[in-house]
Amino acid sequence: MTAPVVWLGGGLVAADEARLDPTDRGLTLGDGLYETLRARAGRPERAAAHFARLARGAAVLGIPLPVDEGALVAALVATLAANGLVDGALRVTLTRGPGPRGIEPPGSPRPTLLVTASPIAPQAAPARVVVAACTRRNERSPVSRVKAIGALDAVLARREALDRGADDAILLGVGGQVAEATVANVFACLDGALVTPPVEDGALPGVARAAILDLGAATEARLSPEDLAGASEVFLSNSLGLRAVASIDGRPVGRGVEGPIVRAIRARLFPP
Amino acid sequence: MTAPVVWLGGGLVAADEARLDPTDRGLTLGDGLYETLRARAGRPERAAAHFARLARGAAVLGIPLPVDEGALVAALVATLAANGLVDGALRVTLTRGPGPRGIEPPGSPRPTLLVTASPIAPQAAPARVVVAACTRRNERSPVSRVKAIGALDAVLARREALDRGADDAILLGVGGQVAEATVANVFACLDGALVTPPVEDGALPGVARAAILDLGAATEARLSPEDLAGASEVFLSNSLGLRAVASIDGRPVGRGVEGPIVRAIRARLFPP
Repeated sequence: MTAPVVWLGGGLVAADEARLDPTDRGLTLGDGLYETLRARAGRPERAAAHFARLARGAAVLGIPLPVDEGALVAALVATLAANGLVDGALRVTLTRGPGPRGIEPPGSPRPTLLVTASPIAPQAAPARVVVAACTRRNERSPVSRVKAIGALDAVLARREALDRGADDAILLGVGGQVAEATVANVFACLDGALVTPPVEDGALPGVARAAILDLGAATEARLSPEDLAGASEVFLSNSLGLRAVASIDGRPVGRGVEGPIVRAIRARLFPP
Repeated sequence: MTAPVVWLGGGLVAADEARLDPTDRGLTLGDGLYETLRARAGRPERAAAHFARLARGAAVLGIPLPVDEGALVAALVATLAANGLVDGALRVTLTRGPGPRGIEPPGSPRPTLLVTASPIAPQAAPARVVVAACTRRNERSPVSRVKAIGALDAVLARREALDRGADDAILLGVGGQVAEATVANVFACLDGALVTPPVEDGALPGVARAAILDLGAATEARLSPEDLAGASEVFLSNSLGLRAVASIDGRPVGRGVEGPIVRAIRARLFPP
C-alpha cells in the first residue's frame, strides 16, 4: 500500500504533509466546486466533460480557473500514479482559496486546487432507496446546477436513508418533484421509455447522465415520487458507475433485481 | 502586529503552520458548522447562546461536540489573546473531520474544531441593499436553520449586490418571502411595529436576533419584499452589530438615514 499522495499547490505532496490554509474559503464558506472522475488504465475517463463542467461552475461562482484541461489531466494522471493506482476514483476540489474574515470574495483570489485519488469499490448490489423526508433540494438556486462543495442536504438525506435501513436516498426539489439521489442522477423506465429529471427540476447536470442522454437512450421529463413507484426499472448514475434500484421506501421496483436496461447502458458507458 | 495564531487540534498554533487534513469533510462536503462571536474586553459576548446554537446544529448533523461550553470559551479567550486582540471577531468552525472518499459519514468521526480571531471593522455606514435576483434561500431544508459552512447562496447574493453597486443583498425564500440578508437577519418597522421573519421562512436563528426578540422589541412575522419597501426603518442584525439599511433596490428606506429604532436597540445590545 502506497502512502497517500495528493496534488496541492501545483505539485504532489504526501497527504499527511499537505497544508490547507485555515482561512481557505472552501472550508470556511463552502466556496468551491468539485468533480469526481473514474480512472481506468491510468487515465481519467470523460476528462473533457468534467473539465467543461468545472469551468462552467467556476464561471458561475466567479472563481478563476488555475489550470487548463491539459494541466488538470496531467495532475490527475500524476496523482493516480503516485498513489500506486491504475483504476480508481479521482477527485478534484477547486476553491476560491484563502480570504479574510467575512463573506465578501477577495478581489484577487488565489484559488486552491486539490486532487486526491482513491481505490474504487466493486460494483454495488442493487440499492434500497428511500425518498428523503428530511430535506429538499433547492432548484431555485444556481448552486443546484454546479457541483458545489456544500453537500449537506445530501449528507442529511444519506443519514436518513441509513437510519431507515436503506442504502441511499432520492431528494425531491422544493416543488415536490424528483430531483436526484445523494451522489447520483436518477433514471426511471416508464411505459417502456427511459426518463430522467431535467436540470430545472434540481438534477445536477451529471457527466454520466449527459452521456446517457447523448446515447439517445433517455429523455428528460418531470418525475413525481409516484412515477418512480410505478416504474419498471429505476437506476442511479454517476461517473463511477450505474447502480440499479431494488426498492423505494420498501416497495420493490419491478421484480426488485437489476433490470436489462441498466445493464445494457452500463455496457455502453463502462465497457469492461 | 502579532502573527496570526489559530486554535486547532486542541491547542494554539501559528496560522501559517496550521495543517488541515485534505480529507476534512468541512472542505470536501461542507459538512460542518460555524459561529461568529463578538469579543469585547478579552471575552466572547453571548457565548452561552452561541454554544447552544452550535450544539443544536451539531445534533441536527450528528456531529459529536468535541468541547463543552467552558472549554470552548477557554479556546476563544486564548485565541483572542494570542492574536494580541482585546476586542474583535471570533470564529468557531466545527466539522465532522476527516473521512474516506464519499458522502457517507464515518462511523467514528474525529471532529475538527478551529478557532480564528480577527480585528473588527468600525461601525459601517447605512447599507444600500438589493433583493437578490440570482438565488433563493431554501427554507424547506433543515440546513437553513443551522449555521452551516456552506454559504454559497449568500456568496452569490453578495456578489450580485456588489455588481449592482450595492453593499449587501436580502435573500428571499423559495416561497418568495423575505428570509434574511447574506450574513445578518432583517428587521423592519411597519406601522410602528418592529418585525422580523420567522425561522420557518428561511431566517437563520441569529443570536442577536434572539436577543432583540427577548427584549420584547420585535415580533416574528412573514414579510414580503413590498413590506420592506414600505417600511419606515429596516436594519440588519448579527453578532457583530446592527446596521441600518439606507435603500433597497435604489429606493430610500424612510429618509435614507439611520433611524431611531436601530440606534435604540444597538444601545441595548451593544452598549459602548
